[in-house]
Amino acid sequence: MDIATICGIIFGFVTVIGTILFEGNLAIFFNIPALAIVGGGCTCATMIHFSLPQLLGIFSIIKKTFVTKLPSQAMIIQKMVDFATINRRDRTLALEQEIRKLNDPFFARGLQMLVDGQNAEAIHEIMSMEVQYQQERHAMGKKILEFMGASCPSFAMVGTLIGLISMLSKMESPEEVGRGMAVALVCTFYGAFTANMLCLPLAGKLGQYSKAETIIKEMIIEGVCAIAKGENPTAVREKIHVFVSAGRRENLKVKS
Amino acid sequence: MDIATICGIIFGFVTVIGTILFEGNLAIFFNIPALAIVGGGCTCATMIHFSLPQLLGIFSIIKKTFVTKLPSQAMIIQKMVDFATINRRDRTLALEQEIRKLNDPFFARGLQMLVDGQNAEAIHEIMSMEVQYQQERHAMGKKILEFMGASCPSFAMVGTLIGLISMLSKMESPEEVGRGMAVALVCTFYGAFTANMLCLPLAGKLGQYSKAETIIKEMIIEGVCAIAKGENPTAVREKIHVFVSAGRRENLKVKS
Amino acid sequence: MDIATICGIIFGFVTVIGTILFEGNLAIFFNIPALAIVGGGCTCATMIHFSLPQLLGIFSIIKKTFVTKLPSQAMIIQKMVDFATINRRDRTLALEQEIRKLNDPFFARGLQMLVDGQNAEAIHEIMSMEVQYQQERHAMGKKILEFMGASCPSFAMVGTLIGLISMLSKMESPEEVGRGMAVALVCTFYGAFTANMLCLPLAGKLGQYSKAETIIKEMIIEGVCAIAKGENPTAVREKIHVFVSAGRRENLKVKS
Amino acid sequence: MDIATICGIIFGFVTVIGTILFEGNLAIFFNIPALAIVGGGCTCATMIHFSLPQLLGIFSIIKKTFVTKLPSQAMIIQKMVDFATINRRDRTLALEQEIRKLNDPFFARGLQMLVDGQNAEAIHEIMSMEVQYQQERHAMGKKILEFMGASCPSFAMVGTLIGLISMLSKMESPEEVGRGMAVALVCTFYGAFTANMLCLPLAGKLGQYSKAETIIKEMIIEGVCAIAKGENPTAVREKIHVFVSAGRRENLKVKS
Amino acid sequence: MDIATICGIIFGFVTVIGTILFEGNLAIFFNIPALAIVGGGCTCATMIHFSLPQLLGIFSIIKKTFVTKLPSQAMIIQKMVDFATINRRDRTLALEQEIRKLNDPFFARGLQMLVDGQNAEAIHEIMSMEVQYQQERHAMGKKILEFMGASCPSFAMVGTLIGLISMLSKMESPEEVGRGMAVALVCTFYGAFTANMLCLPLAGKLGQYSKAETIIKEMIIEGVCAIAKGENPTAVREKIHVFVSAGRRENLKVKS
Repeated sequence: MDIATICGIIFGFVTVIGTILFEGNLAIFFNIPALAIVGGGCTCATMIHFSLPQLLGIFSIIKKTFVTKLPSQAMIIQKMVDFATINRRDRTLALEQEIRKLNDPFFARGLQMLVDGQNAEAIHEIMSMEVQYQQERHAMGKKILEFMGASCPSFAMVGTLIGLISMLSKMESPEEVGRGMAVALVCTFYGAFTANMLCLPLAGKLGQYSKAETIIKEMIIEGVCAIAKGENPTAVREKIHVFVSAGRRENLKVKS
Repeated sequence: MDIATICGIIFGFVTVIGTILFEGNLAIFFNIPALAIVGGGCTCATMIHFSLPQLLGIFSIIKKTFVTKLPSQAMIIQKMVDFATINRRDRTLALEQEIRKLNDPFFARGLQMLVDGQNAEAIHEIMSMEVQYQQERHAMGKKILEFMGASCPSFAMVGTLIGLISMLSKMESPEEVGRGMAVALVCTFYGAFTANMLCLPLAGKLGQYSKAETIIKEMIIEGVCAIAKGENPTAVREKIHVFVSAGRRENLKVKS
Repeated sequence: MDIATICGIIFGFVTVIGTILFEGNLAIFFNIPALAIVGGGCTCATMIHFSLPQLLGIFSIIKKTFVTKLPSQAMIIQKMVDFATINRRDRTLALEQEIRKLNDPFFARGLQMLVDGQNAEAIHEIMSMEVQYQQERHAMGKKILEFMGASCPSFAMVGTLIGLISMLSKMESPEEVGRGMAVALVCTFYGAFTANMLCLPLAGKLGQYSKAETIIKEMIIEGVCAIAKGENPTAVREKIHVFVSAGRRENLKVKS
Repeated sequence: MDIATICGIIFGFVTVIGTILFEGNLAIFFNIPALAIVGGGCTCATMIHFSLPQLLGIFSIIKKTFVTKLPSQAMIIQKMVDFATINRRDRTLALEQEIRKLNDPFFARGLQMLVDGQNAEAIHEIMSMEVQYQQERHAMGKKILEFMGASCPSFAMVGTLIGLISMLSKMESPEEVGRGMAVALVCTFYGAFTANMLCLPLAGKLGQYSKAETIIKEMIIEGVCAIAKGENPTAVREKIHVFVSAGRRENLKVKS
Repeated sequence: MDIATICGIIFGFVTVIGTILFEGNLAIFFNIPALAIVGGGCTCATMIHFSLPQLLGIFSIIKKTFVTKLPSQAMIIQKMVDFATINRRDRTLALEQEIRKLNDPFFARGLQMLVDGQNAEAIHEIMSMEVQYQQERHAMGKKILEFMGASCPSFAMVGTLIGLISMLSKMESPEEVGRGMAVALVCTFYGAFTANMLCLPLAGKLGQYSKAETIIKEMIIEGVCAIAKGENPTAVREKIHVFVSAGRRENLKVKS
């Protein structure tokens, strides 16, 4: 659960709605046809560009970046060192009861393969493939969000043009221009707000999250493979340590 | 037949026309000179940039991405395993009657070469060349659509400028400004709508389709070549499996 | 002579002028100061960026892409096979009278070197250098056209700003705004039209032409070198065939 | 302390505020809701894109580029030559009292490792890792500043749209348009000013600073390692000299 | 002295000022606060991005591209062949009096090193370093000019916004809008003109000049090194010829 993302979205809405309330009334900013053209147009264009399963998959990916909490690097290293000790002391089968205590399914799967007696090469290949597949899904999610971030303002412009043309064509007195223009501009507002507050920053966050998750998963792969080779706890820790950036190593005190 | 693409286009038109009907009347949005300048200008610029055959070829490519349904990966693997079994059991010639049952011309051609007794290298070279040629055609189609997506809004601006200048130059009272401006802005509307609802998403879809079709065709090439080498059904399945992304392998249960 | 390019330009002008005539009168769109600032400004900026010979060379390059008709691939292959037959049957000197029948100077030069008794390596080196030099000239031409395509709308904006500022500063009644604005916007129209109808599509065409011409010239080089090595007509045809994309090979029936 | 950066920011504010004072009164340009929407929106979008620690880290990085004065190349070379002389003459331990005189912590750490008797390879590895980590932090800082430079004008547009829509929807007479529009445009002004005067130039400066600091630190690493290998002062100077660009070598007279 | 650059700038100013005079009076286009905000803002942003010496160095680089006339390739080849002849006939020391006749300091320096008896490798290394350093300076100059070309229109917008907001906030009658808007738009005009007529084309020219000067200097290095190795005039000419593009070789008749 990434607090910055959720706080950012909540504070962003608060700021914008607060400014609207300060400037006038909220009613004019709630406009069904404008919502329909920006939301509908953007969704349709995304459906044409991508396939339906890809479009629907974006919601589960976004939800995951919000809800899933990545395990900390220190915890992974500590666990690995513990498991390597158990493996050395009590044989591999003793790790079986540790699997149930893990709440990271990826880590649990790796440990299960270890307990099942698969060798390091097979574990490395299967788990790396899963990491690669997850990276592809994240990259596709980022691409979809970036396309929506470019598509939203375009359909907002289409909506504003429809509003302007309709208003101008049936205008009888210049006094009406003001109100009609206000309604037409609400579309542009929706497009600019959605693209800049939701689509583009979430696409960026997805990229950051994908990078962080890949490092965590590669640490797990490297660690499980080292245990599978029967290496001692110190060697296991050294191998995982390579993934930790220099400045943070001092903060990661691990009891081996 | 890709349902998402067709639904996207239909719903997109419905959304936009619905919004127009809600806002006012449709008549003002139907404007022959505006259609002429956006459509004509964009077509002429594309004719100057590309050659005539390339421009005409874009329609057949778009039609193909709509109509052609790619065979599923599971079906390809199942067929390959069946053919490998037939090949092992009844000799290559027994595959001849299977060719007639295939409705994928690329697959049929590969099998025909197999039956004709060509060796794996020759089949691989000829079929790979066809895949490469098809990728080039798709890449050219994508490039044309992207050029049109950039050209449409530009000629829409040219059309709006013509409308504005004509209107402003013969304007006698400020009352006329509204209606004249509405007519001029219809051009901008056409450009924004065509580029963002048709050209750019279709260019993206073509790229996605090209990637998917290439994987399917490479699976067929790999499978036919493995059969030509006389490998057993299990080895054939293993070789094709490499093209299936990790997460989807579990869904592909193949009877061998 | 590329018909698509010429038709595109003619139809483009027809479409735009037709729309103008439909909307109003052509007179307001013919504006000497606007032409001066867009054409003059863009030319001056191009002169500052590039050198004078480069700027003047762009016209000869454009003319060439219009006028020069590339020989067809089938013709090149047919000629090469014929020459290889003559070379084998009647010795190299018998090719001398064939040179006069060629109207492609590049091909003629290659054949002349062959007749002069130069070996394959020397011919390859000299002719490849010429191809490379021609590619550089085309790339420079494309770069200049793209710079002009970006520069035209900018100077159109400068011109429109000059018109607007002058008009606004001496305006006495709001009635004048319309006409003055119409005159100022003609500049923007010139810039958008020139960039999108001429500069950018011609830059694209030049890239396409350069690629096509390079393939034709590489076919000639490969063929002449194969003949110089005394290879038989079938081997010569095979070597040139590599440059023909898969799908078009079937259309190229060559009598050998 | 980089004088150009500080002067640039001060003079930039002076120029803009001076122009505002010349044109009218400053009061209208001080607008709390506009500040809230541009500052708040941009901060929230940055929080969604990046994580909270990354966002907070940007201030310490900016402060460092202002306050930290990079040691001059000449000084580094002079010090290295002196230390190499001391190392040769009085043994490594004699360098211990030199560490206290250094006010560059990176240099001091390197020298400390030297005194502690670590070999050249270990020193090189540990110090290079620190340089690489610092480069990553600077690159992340540059990326955040560039994102803010793109986000500011977007939220300025959102703010202006809110202002315009509110104003237009409750407008009763055309006379009010002027004043309302002025208030709405203040948002656009904030966005354009912040992005172009602060975010984008500071992102560029951070890139320049990172490059300069990397060269200085690589000089220190190279020098300390050369001393650790016991090389003579002349060889040490030669090795560091490689990092100095040709034109500036003549200005760096070093007493060896 | 590059005539195209100077003519381009002069004709560009003439075209723009001519159009202004034709449209109205020049006085309104001369506006001190607008000059201050565009010039000052752009200078300050460049000072923040780059360091002060880099900013000041841009003037000397621009001056050099205007004033310095590159020696012609034919002249370099002719001189090299002459010097190679002298070197062969009268020994290296005989070249000493030729140095004084050269007005290209880079060429003179190379010849001086030759006369001083340095070997080819040393000459090549020292002179190549100088070429590389000059390329870096030119690339930095190009980068600064491109940053200014992007910064000018942004600060022009800031200036126009200040003008518009001030004008709108104290406007009492709609009649004043025209004149006030004219004044505000002068800023936009300055930004568009400076960026498109000066900054961007000069950045492009600097790139072209840097490429041309590098070829000339590499010819000199190659030639001087060949003479240093005692090669005969024909071999020297052959070595330099490689730098001349194919199409221009025929125009370079050299007496050897």
